[in-house]
Amino acid sequence: MNRHDIPTPALVLDLDAFADNVTTMAGFVRSHGKAFRPHGKTHKCPEVARALVRAGAIGCCAARLSEAEVFAKAGIPGLLITTAVIGQAKISRAVALADSAPDTIFVVDDRQNVRDINDAAGKRSEPIKLAVDLFFGRTGIAPGQPAVELAQLIDSLPNVTFAGLQSYDGAAAHTTPFDARSTRTRTTMGKAVETKAMLERSGIACPLVTGGSTGTYRFDAENPGMTELQPGSFVFMDMEYGTIGGPNGSDYRDFKNALTVVTTVVSRSPGIAIVDGGYKAFSTDRPFTPGAVGIEGVVYNWAGDEHGRLDVTNASRELRVGDRIEFIPPHVDPTVNLYDSIYALRGDRVEAVWPIAARGKSQ
Amino acid sequence: MNRHDIPTPALVLDLDAFADNVTTMAGFVRSHGKAFRPHGKTHKCPEVARALVRAGAIGCCAARLSEAEVFAKAGIPGLLITTAVIGQAKISRAVALADSAPDTIFVVDDRQNVRDINDAAGKRSEPIKLAVDLFFGRTGIAPGQPAVELAQLIDSLPNVTFAGLQSYDGAAAHTTPFDARSTRTRTTMGKAVETKAMLERSGIACPLVTGGSTGTYRFDAENPGMTELQPGSFVFMDMEYGTIGGPNGSDYRDFKNALTVVTTVVSRSPGIAIVDGGYKAFSTDRPFTPGAVGIEGVVYNWAGDEHGRLDVTNASRELRVGDRIEFIPPHVDPTVNLYDSIYALRGDRVEAVWPIAARGKSQ
Repeated sequence: MNRHDIPTPALVLDLDAFADNVTTMAGFVRSHGKAFRPHGKTHKCPEVARALVRAGAIGCCAARLSEAEVFAKAGIPGLLITTAVIGQAKISRAVALADSAPDTIFVVDDRQNVRDINDAAGKRSEPIKLAVDLFFGRTGIAPGQPAVELAQLIDSLPNVTFAGLQSYDGAAAHTTPFDARSTRTRTTMGKAVETKAMLERSGIACPLVTGGSTGTYRFDAENPGMTELQPGSFVFMDMEYGTIGGPNGSDYRDFKNALTVVTTVVSRSPGIAIVDGGYKAFSTDRPFTPGAVGIEGVVYNWAGDEHGRLDVTNASRELRVGDRIEFIPPHVDPTVNLYDSIYALRGDRVEAVWPIAARGKSQ
Repeated sequence: MNRHDIPTPALVLDLDAFADNVTTMAGFVRSHGKAFRPHGKTHKCPEVARALVRAGAIGCCAARLSEAEVFAKAGIPGLLITTAVIGQAKISRAVALADSAPDTIFVVDDRQNVRDINDAAGKRSEPIKLAVDLFFGRTGIAPGQPAVELAQLIDSLPNVTFAGLQSYDGAAAHTTPFDARSTRTRTTMGKAVETKAMLERSGIACPLVTGGSTGTYRFDAENPGMTELQPGSFVFMDMEYGTIGGPNGSDYRDFKNALTVVTTVVSRSPGIAIVDGGYKAFSTDRPFTPGAVGIEGVVYNWAGDEHGRLDVTNASRELRVGDRIEFIPPHVDPTVNLYDSIYALRGDRVEAVWPIAARGKSQ
């Protein structure tokens, strides 16, 4: 199968650019002596997780239990579920997951949830691993004394064990420009490192401080208190990450745009070309629109659930019904979540079709 | 299974409200003597399509070939594919679909595409049915002479037959208020009716003029030139349709909010509650945020791919970790497209779980 045979709209991955991204991030993290547990919520794809493990990742983060269950079934080791697992039914599933994949780490931020997991876990040779999620504006418990007390509770219970801290500051990832991002990250991550020191003074070992993103990995890697990085989007990249800025006012060019959405022109009228990708083909949660690849002078405009509208008055080439145009997605994670598979290309040849096995697994 | 056992985030459908919506629209369309072919792109769910057929629908529209293939496989009759099918591979599949479901209608707006379909169709006892898609700002060919000429081309070819006109004005559906929507719809649909008259004067019968939406169905039903209505969103409704306005400045209350997304509070911090639904649980293509049901004084704010943040300072009730909150989706079609199934509820009892079999079928 060739690039031009793929039914559109579809996700296509440039395997060379993808390999470069994986090598770049894995090498950077390794050279700074950190563990590498990239986030699977970006790709939801066991093949991508496996490629990362081959490059040295110790495992894979999952945003949710159901996503982790898919990765576990695919044999991906070292799972870390980055949102608390809440409610009796899900906790039962979490215990089952810990039985089959005992190295799985679950994050917590609530005392009752910790007790519920402990109660559901039952007596076991290997207690369930819990990391305390720190609050920087979204989920988590306040760093410092509140986090220490939650770790002490975990430490006091027989069927769970304290694994460490999750220190993820979602808003830092896209803070622009570079220097503001650096300052914010050092401030928030500083609180995690402080909390780790408090824990150790109180006699609780804290072997894990995990966090970081594609936007902040440079600062996290240089932070002696962080033990592990969990970036996600670097594998594919997107329009938004292209704008966050590099050092000294440069563009952010650390990683390549490896993933695009390929569309077909399905209708032409004077001055406009309609492509077959709209709200169901691209995420819409950012102020960016899809970025056309290989054609100049056109701007994508949303035209409903199934369509995009291009003003082609100043297009660098003629566009006809049936022509294909690729676009860089505005925001990669929710875009990937719209598709069932990734067409993995070497040049124009489809080398593999990778199932996005955890697509829609937000539960 | 009970409402409270559903793993969140999830789509839940109030079967009573859904039945009311179906009955209201089907009755209105029938009382105006029009055919009823509701759009399947909203629900992508054979069970919903079947409920509509039971209420008198003659079939089901599909936005794309792959969506139509799913409905055909489920035995839904009277398919109309509302975007042109472009390219050799898809045309081959369209011919196969016409072989197995000969009443299927395909829309076209391009002369070469018409010839390609005719060539691929081969000699056949029943020619492939093509409707000419009229342009009102997105896909389609200009109403009037250009459309007539395309119909004449179809009429001149042996393996395809002219079925009628598709006259869909996407931007009319949400034109606000009521009177502006009425004026716009009458203007654009007037051009379709004029084109139908031109066709008939030129000796080409035009038994079908199909179009309309949940926003415009009243005007379309009163238009003597339209033969068929294809609204979609009325089955479920959403935040956006709630704002388009009814007659004489009233609210738009023609249909009920039957579909909600149920979420769980997964984290609490002073003044905020974090629910487990974000960009992967709700569409984000509209300026609306999810509308909380059954709790006052809270506003949903986006908090990333997997989370929403509620300011609970003025909440009408206490919210704790594990509590469930339902939300009306901002825009229903792309929200449904995020999920694999609909939990269909009678009161609090889960009566059925309906697969969204055409989810992601945008090809």
